[in-house]
Amino acid sequence: MSISEQYFPNEPKGPVVKSTEFPGPESKTQIASLNEVFDSRPVYFVADYEKSLGNYIVDVDGNTLLDVYAQIASIPLGYNNPALLEAAKSDKMIRAIIDRPAIGNFPGSDLKEIISDLLKVAPEGQDKVWSGLSGADANELAFKAAFFWYQGKKRGFTAQFSAEEDKSVMENIAPGSPELAILSFERAFHGRLFASASVTRSKPVHKLDMPSFKWPKAQYPSYKYPLSKYETENAEEDKRCLAIVEEIFKTWHCPIAGLIIEPIQSEGGDNHGSNAFFQGLRDLTLKFGALMIVDEVQTGVGATGKLWCHEHFNLTPKPDLVTFSKKFQSAGYYFHDPEIIPNIAYRQFNTWCGDPARMILAGAIGKEIVKHDLPALAAKVGSYLYAKLELLQAKYPTYLRDLRGKDRATFIAWSLPDAAARNKFLTDMKSVGINIGGCAEDSVRLRPTLVFEEKHADILVAGIEKILAGY
Amino acid sequence: MSISEQYFPNEPKGPVVKSTEFPGPESKTQIASLNEVFDSRPVYFVADYEKSLGNYIVDVDGNTLLDVYAQIASIPLGYNNPALLEAAKSDKMIRAIIDRPAIGNFPGSDLKEIISDLLKVAPEGQDKVWSGLSGADANELAFKAAFFWYQGKKRGFTAQFSAEEDKSVMENIAPGSPELAILSFERAFHGRLFASASVTRSKPVHKLDMPSFKWPKAQYPSYKYPLSKYETENAEEDKRCLAIVEEIFKTWHCPIAGLIIEPIQSEGGDNHGSNAFFQGLRDLTLKFGALMIVDEVQTGVGATGKLWCHEHFNLTPKPDLVTFSKKFQSAGYYFHDPEIIPNIAYRQFNTWCGDPARMILAGAIGKEIVKHDLPALAAKVGSYLYAKLELLQAKYPTYLRDLRGKDRATFIAWSLPDAAARNKFLTDMKSVGINIGGCAEDSVRLRPTLVFEEKHADILVAGIEKILAGY
Repeated sequence: MSISEQYFPNEPKGPVVKSTEFPGPESKTQIASLNEVFDSRPVYFVADYEKSLGNYIVDVDGNTLLDVYAQIASIPLGYNNPALLEAAKSDKMIRAIIDRPAIGNFPGSDLKEIISDLLKVAPEGQDKVWSGLSGADANELAFKAAFFWYQGKKRGFTAQFSAEEDKSVMENIAPGSPELAILSFERAFHGRLFASASVTRSKPVHKLDMPSFKWPKAQYPSYKYPLSKYETENAEEDKRCLAIVEEIFKTWHCPIAGLIIEPIQSEGGDNHGSNAFFQGLRDLTLKFGALMIVDEVQTGVGATGKLWCHEHFNLTPKPDLVTFSKKFQSAGYYFHDPEIIPNIAYRQFNTWCGDPARMILAGAIGKEIVKHDLPALAAKVGSYLYAKLELLQAKYPTYLRDLRGKDRATFIAWSLPDAAARNKFLTDMKSVGINIGGCAEDSVRLRPTLVFEEKHADILVAGIEKILAGY
Repeated sequence: MSISEQYFPNEPKGPVVKSTEFPGPESKTQIASLNEVFDSRPVYFVADYEKSLGNYIVDVDGNTLLDVYAQIASIPLGYNNPALLEAAKSDKMIRAIIDRPAIGNFPGSDLKEIISDLLKVAPEGQDKVWSGLSGADANELAFKAAFFWYQGKKRGFTAQFSAEEDKSVMENIAPGSPELAILSFERAFHGRLFASASVTRSKPVHKLDMPSFKWPKAQYPSYKYPLSKYETENAEEDKRCLAIVEEIFKTWHCPIAGLIIEPIQSEGGDNHGSNAFFQGLRDLTLKFGALMIVDEVQTGVGATGKLWCHEHFNLTPKPDLVTFSKKFQSAGYYFHDPEIIPNIAYRQFNTWCGDPARMILAGAIGKEIVKHDLPALAAKVGSYLYAKLELLQAKYPTYLRDLRGKDRATFIAWSLPDAAARNKFLTDMKSVGINIGGCAEDSVRLRPTLVFEEKHADILVAGIEKILAGY
C-alpha cells in the first residue's frame, strides 16, 4: 500500500469539476461576503477543509481539485492527515493551545522534548534551533543573530556593552545601533516585514512605499536550460555572480554581517544555483567574516528530495543559519556555532518565543517524514514527473520553456511566453481539476505535498496536456 | 458563585510553597537539561501546565503560586479554562491546526465567522481587522498600513504605481522606497524586530547591535504621584510633552506617516498619560496628517477595566489603528477607515496572514469576556486592590513608591528604591507563593488574569505585607 493509501484510504481517485468557471458561484458569493470583514481580493476560491483530503482540496461549490500548490507550498502531509489529527487531539497540543506559555521565562516540562523533536530533522551539521512564527519572522530573527554575532566578534563574545553603546542605542545611533548590512540577491524573496522586505527583491508589490534598509544586492545566476546543454555558459554565469558578491564584500561602505540566500529562488521564479555557486558563496562568507544564512522557508522539509534543499550542495563548512517555516508549520532557524547564542540573556527574546502548539505539530510532521522517508518518495515521484514533463516539453516547447528542477524531486517549474499566457494557464488548469500556482511573472511552480505519488503525477500531466492541446 | 468558582471549582485556596529557594531543585535540574537545546538563562522556573489551574501556576517542584504575572500579561482567563478547553477540542480548531490555510488565497468557509468574532470585541469605532502573529508583527503590519496610506494620500488612493516607483523600489531607493518615519516615545516598548525595535526605547538589551531606522522620538509624560496631589504639575508635563511632539512634526527632515503609543507604557515602567495628553496627540496627528497607532498589545483585552485601555480617553476621532496580541492569543490591528485597506491586492499579504487556530481561540476568549463582563470585574477587583495597596503604601512608603493605576482596574504598578531592591522583592515574593513581574528597572507590575478576584487580591496583599514587614 502506498503512503497516500495508508493515510487516506478514501482519497478521491481524481478531480471532480462541477463549476464552469472559477471561482464557482458559491465561492463568488462567499468571497463577496467575506470581503465585508477581510480583504478577499486575492482569494482564488473558498475551500471546504472538512471535505478536503490528502492531495485534494474541495471547494464550497463541490469541486474536487488535485492540489499541487498546497497553500503556497505549506501543506506537508496532505489535508486531514490522520497522524496530524492525532497530534492535534493530544493533551499536549490542547494544553499548548489554551495555556500558551512565555517559554523563555516559564517553559513547561515538555519543552525540551518539543524542541528535541525539531532537532531530529535538523539540517546536516546543525544541532540548535531558535523558534519564531513565520518565514519573515524567522529570517529577521536570523538577522538579529547575525548582527549580535558580528558585533560580538569585534567586541569579544564575553564582553559586556560599553556605557556609550548603552546610551547611543537608545538614540538609534552608533555605536549601540551600528550601520551593518545583510547581503541579498536580485529576485530573492525573504518576507515582507521591514528588514525582510529590505532583502526581498522579487516584485514591487511586496514592498512599495515601505522605508527600507539600504543594503546591497548581488546577482543570482540566470542559467540557460537544459543545464546539461549549457554547462560551460552556466559555469561562467556562476563566476560572474560570485565576482559581484566578492566585489560587494570588498567595497560596501559598511560591514556586511551576513548573506541570505534561497537554495532555489522560489517566489522569484524557481531560479537555481549550482553546487559550485553555493560553495563559492560559502567560501566568500568565510573569507570576509560574514555568516551564511540559507532561507529554506519554501525549499525545506523534503520537497526537493532531501530534508533540506541545501544538503544537495554538500557545503563545507555547513551554513551558519538555516531558516524554516511553511511546510514545517512552525518557524525559526537552525544553527550550530555556540557563539551564535547571544552573550547575555534577553537579547534574542520575546513574550512567546514561538508557538509550542505549532512546534508540536512540526515534531509530528518531522516524525512522519522520517518514518516514511518522504524525501525519497518526493525524489522518486519527481523523477517520474520530470521525465513526463520533458516529453510534454518536446511537444509544446513554447508553453514549457526552461523546465527546471531536474534532481530536485517535485520542486519543478517552467516558464510560459509571458504573464498573460501564464495567468491564463493557471486559470485553465482549474477547469481540468488542478489547483496550481505561479512564480515570477511568467512561470509555473509545482509545490505538491510530500504524499504526492505517481498516480497523482499522471493526473497532473494529463491535465496539462489537455490544456496545452487546446492552445 | 463567582466567575473563578464557576470556571475552576477546584482552584487552589491559596499558594503552597514547597521549595526553600527558587527555582526549586527539580526546576534547576530541568533548566540545566533544557539549556542543551534552548537558551534557558531567562527561565524563572519550569511549570507544570497540566496541574496549573485558574490563577495558580504549579511548577515541577510542586509549588503552587498565585500568578499575577500570567505569562508576561498574556493569559486571559486563567490556566486550563474549561471554555477554552472546549474551543481547543472543537472540530473547527482541529481543522485549523492540521489544515492551516493560506487565508488570503484559499480561506475556509468558516473564516468570515472567525474574523467576525474578533470584530465583536473591536475597540469603539473600529470595524475592520487585519491579522498577524505577535505584538511586534502586529505593530509592523500597522506601520506598513500607515506607510501605504500616507503615500496613497499623496499619490491618490486609486492611482497605480509609476514606472519609476516600480523600478526604484527594487533598488531600495526613493520614490518607490521613500524616506518616511514613525514617531514613538522614550521608554516605549513595541517589539524587537527591526522596525518595531526602532520605535522601542525601553532598554538597551532589546536592540543593541541592531541596525535601526533613524526615526524620531518624543517624550512620554513623567507624572508625579499621587495624581490627585499634582494636577497642575502633571498638566504642565502634558503640555511640555505635546509641544515636543508638535515640534518634531514641524521640523523632522522627512514625513512622519504615523505615531505609535501605548496607552500605558508597560515594559517601560507602567507610565501613564492623561486623557488630555492623548487627545492632544490625536489632535496633532490630524493637524499634521499622520495616523495614530495605539499599541494595545499589553493593555488590551480587559485588564484596565475597559476592553481596550484607550477607551478610557474618549478620543475624538477614534485612533486610526489599534494593535493587539498577548491576552488575545492572536495578533493584528483594528481599524475603520476603508482607505487603510491598500489600493491593490497583495500589498498587505503573506502566506498565512495570521493563524486561524489562534484567531478561533481569540474569538472564544472574546465571547467569555463579553458574557461575563470581565472588564467590569477587573475594575471592581482593581479598585478593591488599589485601596488595600494605598494602605500598605502608607505603612511602607519606600517600597511602594509612585503607586500607579488608579481607575485602571488591576493594571497596577509601583516603584521600589532601586533595581536591586525591586529584584529582591520579586524573588522574595515567590517565598510567599506569588509569581509577580517587574517593569523598567525599579518597578513592579501587576498583570493578573481577568478572573482574578478579591479573594486573590487578599492573598496578594498579605504576601506583599509579609515580605515588606521583613525589610
